[in-house]
Amino acid sequence: MKTVAILGSTGTIGRNTLDVIRRHRGAFRVVALAAGANSRLLEDQAREFRPRIVSLGRPEDAAAFRRDVRLPGLKVLAGLEGAAEIGGGPESGIVVSAITGIAGLRPTLAAVEAGKTVALANKESMVVAGPLLRRAAARSGAAILPVDSEHSGVFQCLNGGNRALVKKVVLTASGGPFFRAPLRDLRTKTVAQALAHPRWRMGRKVTVDSATLMNKGLELIEARHLFDLAPAELGVLIHPQSLVHALVELRDGSVLAQLSPTDMRFPIQYALTYPDRLPSGLAPLDLARARALEFHEVEPRRYPLLGLALEALEEGGSLPVALNAANEVAVEAFLAGRIGFLGISEVLQAALARHVRTAVRSLGDIFDIDRRTRERTTRIIQRKD
Amino acid sequence: MKTVAILGSTGTIGRNTLDVIRRHRGAFRVVALAAGANSRLLEDQAREFRPRIVSLGRPEDAAAFRRDVRLPGLKVLAGLEGAAEIGGGPESGIVVSAITGIAGLRPTLAAVEAGKTVALANKESMVVAGPLLRRAAARSGAAILPVDSEHSGVFQCLNGGNRALVKKVVLTASGGPFFRAPLRDLRTKTVAQALAHPRWRMGRKVTVDSATLMNKGLELIEARHLFDLAPAELGVLIHPQSLVHALVELRDGSVLAQLSPTDMRFPIQYALTYPDRLPSGLAPLDLARARALEFHEVEPRRYPLLGLALEALEEGGSLPVALNAANEVAVEAFLAGRIGFLGISEVLQAALARHVRTAVRSLGDIFDIDRRTRERTTRIIQRKD
Repeated sequence: MKTVAILGSTGTIGRNTLDVIRRHRGAFRVVALAAGANSRLLEDQAREFRPRIVSLGRPEDAAAFRRDVRLPGLKVLAGLEGAAEIGGGPESGIVVSAITGIAGLRPTLAAVEAGKTVALANKESMVVAGPLLRRAAARSGAAILPVDSEHSGVFQCLNGGNRALVKKVVLTASGGPFFRAPLRDLRTKTVAQALAHPRWRMGRKVTVDSATLMNKGLELIEARHLFDLAPAELGVLIHPQSLVHALVELRDGSVLAQLSPTDMRFPIQYALTYPDRLPSGLAPLDLARARALEFHEVEPRRYPLLGLALEALEEGGSLPVALNAANEVAVEAFLAGRIGFLGISEVLQAALARHVRTAVRSLGDIFDIDRRTRERTTRIIQRKD
Repeated sequence: MKTVAILGSTGTIGRNTLDVIRRHRGAFRVVALAAGANSRLLEDQAREFRPRIVSLGRPEDAAAFRRDVRLPGLKVLAGLEGAAEIGGGPESGIVVSAITGIAGLRPTLAAVEAGKTVALANKESMVVAGPLLRRAAARSGAAILPVDSEHSGVFQCLNGGNRALVKKVVLTASGGPFFRAPLRDLRTKTVAQALAHPRWRMGRKVTVDSATLMNKGLELIEARHLFDLAPAELGVLIHPQSLVHALVELRDGSVLAQLSPTDMRFPIQYALTYPDRLPSGLAPLDLARARALEFHEVEPRRYPLLGLALEALEEGGSLPVALNAANEVAVEAFLAGRIGFLGISEVLQAALARHVRTAVRSLGDIFDIDRRTRERTTRIIQRKD
């Protein structure tokens, strides 16, 4: 019986993780759940899975939860400290890190420092603090297992293999809803259109990142750190069917690929059961029904954000931190209707042009760069208002 | 430096094996070459690679070779005994078993009994004598590594993995030249049309077997023994592009696949370098150029021979031996213009309908069943003449 804590239990990954656990009651026990503001759903989850600890983002929500829910023996925490305590606490063997954005970094680091098996869905942690997390994992003996379908695919292809035999790792991208749209129409794409992802049901932020391919850019940076790859060893192919998640080309030219239906529960379950695999009960892959799997090179003009991400991948240091921060602010502004779809890349370009490279030695450095970039990006957007 | 003996050095696999070795002179040394009747090419190969032993099928060819070629220190053998001595001799670490048909069985068994690393391209050996070869390998400690692209693909997907986690192994088939032909036209297909394989350059026998899908049927039987799979764990998908060679579905529904360009040197090289991989210098896979990978279920009416092979896969025992023998005779008759394309399946059906199941305990049993089936099949064809 593995014990599981979930950071971000009310988000897409959190809910899917709980569904995987629901299907394997004998294999997993939920010991802690951290949510943001969704008290209502957290209550349902707490009643169903009976964790020993829950956490909510704001102290007042935590207080209300403590007062109203009254589950015997349940400890209710608040804020990032609550999340970090859940990540690093002694109850859990596996910590699912699924808080979106840089807010997930501190609790993820706490889990890594505590030597947990960390099922990592919070890609921003690796993007902004990859070297830090890797050093912490090396010290504590923590295992970081990918939950993103692409990284899970890479991990499965590499499994048991010799890293020195790898020539190139290619992540696939669906291309998002605008893959086939005329380039001249991109400027007028609405929030609703950007959120209409053809393949995956995900949160709003990551769905927009899929339309711009920034998501893939962040994933490349994440993959660099997760699998210790050089930037030149990483690539992207557009694959609209989203059934092949990753391709690993080996030194002799042979390629291994991982496929599964577009259902996050496949990679989540693998991270939970690794190195074992359990029957998932999920609809299996039907290639004959899918008929054709297409692969296309990325058109740089359609996806300018990927170009910015590739620069950050190549350069490392403070640039990935700034990239991630500026992107979070710009996407939020797009979702709020304050800038248009192409405004995202225009804002990022302006924000990163003014980024001053600095050393990244600590969590403090990262939060500084993050805060300054957010402020700068916000000012850029305000001038646009 | 690995030492290599090649059984069937002048055939397609043999020539490709020597090309792989030519590209990696520092890694391999050729110590022995066995050919059939192509003295001229064997001489070229002997002059280039300087083996210590060669063998030709007929004693008179061996005598002529000994007299004419005059390479200092070269031992020239003849017949199956020569091939078996090369397979089992002390000089070689790796034996590439690439003699076509059941003629390859005795030398392959000799190599397995001698505890060699056997790179197996002679699928008939596994089809007719799988349990025998596996028992012999278990006794001698021989490793049997697949050279067929499909089995190499399975082997690469399974590498380091736990066999108990495998749910299903799917081999892909190009579908051959008649995959999209109207069914009513199959009867009039000529030898030249059957030999015009859309993807692979191979020998004539296996090219015809690709057009009928008997090749895939034999490969399923081979895979059963190579990877210790139950018949229900094996499947086939038509994949006209022939870039994905095998798919392994794991217990949780996740699928691993192996891809490489349609060039036999990829799997041959992997069998030679295993568990290492060396740069191949071969043109890499270009999925964006390939554009679409298609997958289709097999139409049973188009490929009746696959149905016969599936029966033999399911039943085992003497039926695979009879299947292989009847098919060799029928394909030979087709290539000689004595029966039409659909005649192959008609002859096989008639030959197998009269097959009497017997026990397969020894090589002698296998050769008996093989001989009797060939005689019966020949009689059936003669009545057709």
